Amino acid sequence: MDVENIKFQHEMPAQLRFSDVDQFGHVNNSVYFSLFDTCKTIYIFDALGQETFKDVGIVVAHINADFIAPIYYPDEIVIQTAVQHIGTKSFTLYQRVINNRTKEVKCVCQTVMVTFDLKNNKSIEIDQKFKVRLAEFDKNPDLLKNEK
Amino acid sequence: MDVENIKFQHEMPAQLRFSDVDQFGHVNNSVYFSLFDTCKTIYIFDALGQETFKDVGIVVAHINADFIAPIYYPDEIVIQTAVQHIGTKSFTLYQRVINNRTKEVKCVCQTVMVTFDLKNNKSIEIDQKFKVRLAEFDKNPDLLKNEK
Amino acid sequence: MDVENIKFQHEMPAQLRFSDVDQFGHVNNSVYFSLFDTCKTIYIFDALGQETFKDVGIVVAHINADFIAPIYYPDEIVIQTAVQHIGTKSFTLYQRVINNRTKEVKCVCQTVMVTFDLKNNKSIEIDQKFKVRLAEFDKNPDLLKNEK
Amino acid sequence: MDVENIKFQHEMPAQLRFSDVDQFGHVNNSVYFSLFDTCKTIYIFDALGQETFKDVGIVVAHINADFIAPIYYPDEIVIQTAVQHIGTKSFTLYQRVINNRTKEVKCVCQTVMVTFDLKNNKSIEIDQKFKVRLAEFDKNPDLLKNEK
Repeated sequence: MDVENIKFQHEMPAQLRFSDVDQFGHVNNSVYFSLFDTCKTIYIFDALGQETFKDVGIVVAHINADFIAPIYYPDEIVIQTAVQHIGTKSFTLYQRVINNRTKEVKCVCQTVMVTFDLKNNKSIEIDQKFKVRLAEFDKNPDLLKNEK
Repeated sequence: MDVENIKFQHEMPAQLRFSDVDQFGHVNNSVYFSLFDTCKTIYIFDALGQETFKDVGIVVAHINADFIAPIYYPDEIVIQTAVQHIGTKSFTLYQRVINNRTKEVKCVCQTVMVTFDLKNNKSIEIDQKFKVRLAEFDKNPDLLKNEK
Repeated sequence: MDVENIKFQHEMPAQLRFSDVDQFGHVNNSVYFSLFDTCKTIYIFDALGQETFKDVGIVVAHINADFIAPIYYPDEIVIQTAVQHIGTKSFTLYQRVINNRTKEVKCVCQTVMVTFDLKNNKSIEIDQKFKVRLAEFDKNPDLLKNEK
Repeated sequence: MDVENIKFQHEMPAQLRFSDVDQFGHVNNSVYFSLFDTCKTIYIFDALGQETFKDVGIVVAHINADFIAPIYYPDEIVIQTAVQHIGTKSFTLYQRVINNRTKEVKCVCQTVMVTFDLKNNKSIEIDQKFKVRLAEFDKNPDLLKNEK
């Protein structure tokens, strides 16, 4: 799905820490991924429930990020998260870092995540029930049309 | 001043990150100091103004922390900050990590901070103006009785 | 340039920290970028000299990473760094995380970096002198053929 | 035991990361604890074996640190670790951060650690076998004289 058409149903503040800033006064790029990770986890808790990680593990397989403008400390930022694509054994999240005052987009990131069975440590197909809940949560029925 | 008598005028939420948790499911001890640091900075911004760090640097000289109970992810926590003592070239902050739902105290920490001149990189005496503002902000006039 | 043809002239150990590991016992994905960043900085110090960052700043514009297999603590890892492409105002680094005992490739990452003038905070063209030094350091004269 | 009399049998390099540095160019204080933690873990692996954490958990109960001089990036540092005291249900580690070129002591830290049963999540007495091994590893038989 084209990222331009994504309507974000999930947005939350991400608190910056004093130690996130590097010598240039910029938030270090590795911090962005820590923030994306945090909001990704809450997104999944919110969409699928906190019990999700009991049997099924989710790991990051691929990350693709564009850094558009630097974040300074203590900017007030929020992170938006939506599902961009649901495949058979993986799904793709699309996330944006936004300056909450200026609404400037600071960074966009696509993350491909793979589900696996925590007992056998093997990748598994995504449960149809999960697919439906994600599509409902995101108010995006097109996610269930499983075109690649 | 006895820490039992401290009334906290500054309290703020500290957002946990997914990566803060270690193998035992506990928030790692180094993370606490990153959170204390963050709230310490905001405390100083709130009490003394965001311009404080333009000429005067503040460095940590001593840390003394008691870990009372583990923090789990995603516990909702807040951090309380107050000045415990003001000396000639240093001041001591007293901070507590609180579980915001149970009000359980998770960790208490005393931090001695030293002020220094950013130009000459030398420790300097704390400005009387700063002392008065800190005492006012904390509603604690006893801080100005400069007993050791 | 095709990444298959890259010969790495720069390899260094990256020390894992106890706090790098998440609840699943895996090194968290944000840590990889902190390690890539560290080795990227040393690569540039080694190739261009430690004075490089005095006038010229370098920021990350794009990151593209494939996570091939998890890293466990305390795996012994090394990171390889090479230049993949040199453009007019940007250059692309190609990096790999390797398990130093098994030689298994854990993660590969491409990072597009943009040079800018620290005084004016504006992107600037990469100095021809820098391009030549990078190509020499990597023993890769093809880097100077500036095809996109 | 007086810290002046401690002879360190365990010393290891701790690699700084680019993101460890704050706006003032100093390594942030929370990073020290992440490094202490890392070297503490390896100390325990080296002294007691990597299987130690299978049944017995170890948590930090108290930290007391003196920051003597700032660490700059990319200083080459090492961390020394020794046992300072062994009690019934806790033991105290003494650690120092040293600049490996100048041998300057940058920070000293005492950490009280408590052992607990991972199954019942209750503090337990330290095994006499562990006490003997720690004293042997540190070549410090006085550690077994259990005076407070």
